[in-house]
Amino acid sequence: MILIKLGGSVITDKRKESAARKRTINRLAREMKLSGKELIIVHGAGSFGHITARVFNLDKGYESKEQLMGFSVTHRNVRILNNIVLEALLSAGLKAVSIPPLSFIKLKRKRLHSIDLSLFEDSLRLGLTPVTFGDVVFDAGLSFSICSGDLLMVELAKKFQPEKAIFVIDEDGIYSGDPKKSREVKLLRSVSKDDLMKISTDISVTDVTGGMKGKLGSIAEIADQGIEVLVINGNKRNRLLNALLGKKVKGTTVYGD
Amino acid sequence: MILIKLGGSVITDKRKESAARKRTINRLAREMKLSGKELIIVHGAGSFGHITARVFNLDKGYESKEQLMGFSVTHRNVRILNNIVLEALLSAGLKAVSIPPLSFIKLKRKRLHSIDLSLFEDSLRLGLTPVTFGDVVFDAGLSFSICSGDLLMVELAKKFQPEKAIFVIDEDGIYSGDPKKSREVKLLRSVSKDDLMKISTDISVTDVTGGMKGKLGSIAEIADQGIEVLVINGNKRNRLLNALLGKKVKGTTVYGD
Repeated sequence: MILIKLGGSVITDKRKESAARKRTINRLAREMKLSGKELIIVHGAGSFGHITARVFNLDKGYESKEQLMGFSVTHRNVRILNNIVLEALLSAGLKAVSIPPLSFIKLKRKRLHSIDLSLFEDSLRLGLTPVTFGDVVFDAGLSFSICSGDLLMVELAKKFQPEKAIFVIDEDGIYSGDPKKSREVKLLRSVSKDDLMKISTDISVTDVTGGMKGKLGSIAEIADQGIEVLVINGNKRNRLLNALLGKKVKGTTVYGD
Repeated sequence: MILIKLGGSVITDKRKESAARKRTINRLAREMKLSGKELIIVHGAGSFGHITARVFNLDKGYESKEQLMGFSVTHRNVRILNNIVLEALLSAGLKAVSIPPLSFIKLKRKRLHSIDLSLFEDSLRLGLTPVTFGDVVFDAGLSFSICSGDLLMVELAKKFQPEKAIFVIDEDGIYSGDPKKSREVKLLRSVSKDDLMKISTDISVTDVTGGMKGKLGSIAEIADQGIEVLVINGNKRNRLLNALLGKKVKGTTVYGD
C-alpha cells in the first residue's frame, strides 16, 4: 500500500478562500487510478480550512463562544473540498470512501490523544480507497483544535507501514531554503531525516498547522519508521503517476538513517 | 434536548435522483434555529441515497465487486445532500457539525453491532448541534449495508433520552392507511405504540430501508422508552417550529402505553 498526501497548496489556491484547483485534482485522481496501486489518500484543507481557521483562531482551541460557528463553518468548508476530491476520485474510477478525522481522532492540547483506524482497515479489506483530510477535531484539553493532514500521514504510516509515503506539494521537492523567497536554494534529491530537521524553512501564506516546519517534522517521523518518503511536485503532469509506479522522478527522497 | 428526524421525502424529491428541496430545507433550518432548543438532527438520504442503493442492491450487502463503486457513489451522494443541509443550518445560525454514521456505527446483518455516540456528547457539551443521516455503513456480516435514519433515531433516543422525538415527514402524520393511495383513511391524532404496529402501511416509492413499516417500528421503539414521539408535516410552514415550542400542532402523537 502507498500512502499519499495531496498538499493543500496543490489542490487549492491558498491565497483565495475556498478555491479548489479542480483540473489539478482531476489529473492527480487519474494518475492515482492509472497506477493500479492500493492507496490511502490524505489531503490538506488548503484555503477551505486555513483562512476560516485563522479568522476564528481555531488553532488556539476554545477561547470564546464565537469560535463555535468558526468550527462549524471550517468543518463544512473542508467537507466541500473533500467532496470535490471524492468526485474526482470516483470519476477516475477509484472506489473512494471519505473518513473525516473528527470521527476517528481526538487530540489533547494539539497532540494525539486517541485514534481508531479500524475504518481504514475495513475499507482496505473491501477494496475501497480510504480518503481523509486535515480538519478541525475535538481536543480533550482545548475543546477543539486542528488536526493537520501531516499528522494523519504520520499516524497512518505507523499503523499501516506503507511501502512508500508520497507528499505531493507545489514545489519540485525539499530545497535547502525557501524556493519562494530565494533563487539561491537548491533542490535536495536525497536527504537523511536528521539533515532534514536542520533545514530552515518558513512560508509566506496562511497555515494554521505549523507550515513547512511542521511538515518536515512529520516527514522525518515517517522516514524514522524505515519508510521511504518521497516529496514531489503535483503540478507537473505524471510525476505522481511515475512515482507510484516506482520510476525515478524529480523530487526529494527522505531516508531514515 | 429534542431529537429531530428530517424525512428523506421532505428534504428531497424521492422520485428524482439527487434532487434536494432546498427551499424546504432552508425553512426547516430557520424554524429549528428560531425555536432556541438544543437539538440533535437526523436526516434521511432520500433520492440521494435510495436510488443508487437500489441500483447496486446495497441493501443485500456485499454480493459482487461491482457494488463497491455503488457503495462509494452512494456515500458521496448522501454527503452532497448532507452538505446542503449543513449549509442551510449554518446560514440559519445553527452551529451544526456533521457526524456520518459510517464513523460511529457498525451493523451485523443489518442489525446493530456496535455504536459509539461520544462525538454527539462532545458536540452537545460544546454547544454544537450534531447532525447525522441515513447512509451506507460497514457490516460485520455483509461487509456493508444500509443504516437508516430511523435506526439512528432509535439509538440516539435510547442514549440521550430526549424530551421529545419529532419525525418530520411529507404527510400530516400517521394515517389509518396509506393516504397516498386512499382518501378513506383518517389521520390519527394520538396513538399508542401497540396500536401503531397494527396499522398496515406500504409505500409506493423506492425505499431500501424498509419503508413506512420500518419507520413505524422505530417510532414504537422510541415511544416504548417513555419518550413522546410526534409525527408532523414538514411541508407546512411553522409546524416544526410550533412543535418544537411545545404548542399543539396538527400531527400524530405516539405514546408508550
